[in-house]
Amino acid sequence: VDDAQARDAHDPLAGFRDQFVIGDPELAYLDGNSLGRLPKATAERIRRDIQAWGEDLIRGWDRGWMELPVTVGDLLGSAALGAGPGQVVVGDSTTVCFYKLAAAALDARPGRRRIIANADDFPTDRYVLESLATARDLEVVWLRFDPDAGPDASSIASALDDQTALVAVSHVAYRSAHIADMPAINQLAHAAGALTLWDLSHSAGALALALDADDCDLAVGCTYKYLNGGPGAPAYMYVRHEVQADIRQPIWGWLGRRDPFSMGPGYLPAEGPVALLSGTPPVLALGCVQEGVRLVAQAGIAAIREKGIRLTQYAIELIDRYLAPLGAAVGSPRDPLRRGAHVALRHPDAAALTVALRQRQVITDFREPDVVRLGLSPLTTRYIDVWRGIDALRETLSENVDQR
Amino acid sequence: VDDAQARDAHDPLAGFRDQFVIGDPELAYLDGNSLGRLPKATAERIRRDIQAWGEDLIRGWDRGWMELPVTVGDLLGSAALGAGPGQVVVGDSTTVCFYKLAAAALDARPGRRRIIANADDFPTDRYVLESLATARDLEVVWLRFDPDAGPDASSIASALDDQTALVAVSHVAYRSAHIADMPAINQLAHAAGALTLWDLSHSAGALALALDADDCDLAVGCTYKYLNGGPGAPAYMYVRHEVQADIRQPIWGWLGRRDPFSMGPGYLPAEGPVALLSGTPPVLALGCVQEGVRLVAQAGIAAIREKGIRLTQYAIELIDRYLAPLGAAVGSPRDPLRRGAHVALRHPDAAALTVALRQRQVITDFREPDVVRLGLSPLTTRYIDVWRGIDALRETLSENVDQR
Repeated sequence: VDDAQARDAHDPLAGFRDQFVIGDPELAYLDGNSLGRLPKATAERIRRDIQAWGEDLIRGWDRGWMELPVTVGDLLGSAALGAGPGQVVVGDSTTVCFYKLAAAALDARPGRRRIIANADDFPTDRYVLESLATARDLEVVWLRFDPDAGPDASSIASALDDQTALVAVSHVAYRSAHIADMPAINQLAHAAGALTLWDLSHSAGALALALDADDCDLAVGCTYKYLNGGPGAPAYMYVRHEVQADIRQPIWGWLGRRDPFSMGPGYLPAEGPVALLSGTPPVLALGCVQEGVRLVAQAGIAAIREKGIRLTQYAIELIDRYLAPLGAAVGSPRDPLRRGAHVALRHPDAAALTVALRQRQVITDFREPDVVRLGLSPLTTRYIDVWRGIDALRETLSENVDQR
Repeated sequence: VDDAQARDAHDPLAGFRDQFVIGDPELAYLDGNSLGRLPKATAERIRRDIQAWGEDLIRGWDRGWMELPVTVGDLLGSAALGAGPGQVVVGDSTTVCFYKLAAAALDARPGRRRIIANADDFPTDRYVLESLATARDLEVVWLRFDPDAGPDASSIASALDDQTALVAVSHVAYRSAHIADMPAINQLAHAAGALTLWDLSHSAGALALALDADDCDLAVGCTYKYLNGGPGAPAYMYVRHEVQADIRQPIWGWLGRRDPFSMGPGYLPAEGPVALLSGTPPVLALGCVQEGVRLVAQAGIAAIREKGIRLTQYAIELIDRYLAPLGAAVGSPRDPLRRGAHVALRHPDAAALTVALRQRQVITDFREPDVVRLGLSPLTTRYIDVWRGIDALRETLSENVDQR
């Protein structure tokens, strides 16, 4: 405990916790990678946006609402994605965004019949690729990796060929937190003539991404994890400037059209990333995302990443010391440069452990088949929370051992 | 003025206006069919939902959030759509919902190569059909009607053949307010072996719909017009029980899958309308929709429809008396049974008129090429608002005439 408290006392980001609503101060919330906490600024923002709806009514669309997908996208690009302006928009669910960009990538590589994906990626991505492959009679090459790892460049290299249209993988694996080698995989894919589509859901807001510098083609991600956008908040899409001319998303709607209010016949895509939009922007939700992203911008992604490494390193040290003797194991990379901001704890009773932890005021989540996932969102997680979580695990596991 | 005030005094729904936030009492807001007003209950609801996010955090998903698409869908079905439970879900934009159901309908009629649509329908619907037709090399048969009318059964009958997969039209035309004959068109389409997809954006919350009784197959609609769900609120999808087994939407995501938290390999659609979902439900937005729909349920759709007929009839009488001599004409059906809750005013200077009206505290909207649209949302529009709107039009048009 003393050690954790000392770490908190020296944490340069400690003050950011005060910018979030903290309901129960005793709660060790180790699930900010499923749903990030509520920023105080967001509660205030939504109050103002609701008021604007009530008073400005339809005029709100002329007072900034219409531009929100791009305004928030550009802010997100600079604060968290390493993406210059004019390449990111926010809107639609992660699933729909992933569908749009995956479909567009396949259309941009006609005749090529293969998609390379990770068999252990987050289910929605797998199902979307399956739906597209089924509809177009394509093949998904499902790569398999050790449970505590994720896509490596050499596996991707072995799978790539001149029939590969798309490499679609998560940057940080949702279970193991393994970080894929983004620049190397992009380079390999491009050498084979394929496009890359990255799911950044477990990366953005936790890691210093460099989509432009790393030569990414396409990316999507959710905003309700490390970006603290709220439950079911809209997702974002990134399309690199150089490939925008080749990318035409499949769901043509009025707000992706050039000159939408002419309401004219025939669809003509708008310039730039606006063409990725389909329907009317979800105004209130976009305001929430904007406030969450602002906090990331304010803290600085480098400082956030630094704390994420320290928090996960601390968790791993405690697991090794206290939980390994009780049958648990680290299921995440030990190299901090290959590890995101969560730690997978592997144990055969992981499901029951997750339930027992909640009774001890520690919130984590369970991932099939044997992982307790400890999400350590740097802006809101304290070292004392990590300590409490591991201590509760130690107590629970000790009781289990005693009962046998 | 006296007449309008007398009508307001005898309006059985007059009290409902108090359940909405009214910023400027002098404002004649005749655009509730673009963006409905803010219910007071919604402001309170979102405050509670934000608090639940802050305090319950991820546990909110076990406390009703996950079921919201269905809970709100069933409520909407009974309050406004004439749809029994288990057929409606809320989520995604209207454009994405329309895409999902149109694509699913085409998949359910393999080999058939034609879609029947209205060339004057709302652009997003037209563009979606164009995107699907382009991707699948199908033909859209674009029906054309008088500007103050919309699809009639005989035109549909002439266009239908054994190559028609889908008839996809709006129920209430967004410009003219013309109501299509839903049961007749469904019957004709079914006789030809085609499916029907209705856009209810300008119907739901204004008219007593009877999707079940009228034998509709599929329907979508937005919730930010007469349902007062807020700017960019999520849309809904209806799939009739009898066709659910044939309908498989194209965007396979984790929350449309059976047993989503197993996160297992391979997509298996969930039972019932849940299979229409793709990504994580937009929790805060769904709460707003629920509150808006509750007010419709409370007022009763029959009473709302009754007032909508009276308001539009009053507007038409005033237009005939005061504006027709000044060169304006009614561009909506005169038969109240064929007219939704807005009135199209046709005038060559419609765009400039709309701007001039705003300076007189009257909000309408302009629709290409010559329509000022007067939206008379029954729960919040007073007869005095109608009178003020027409009076402001009379003044503006008189000045214009004087200046010539």
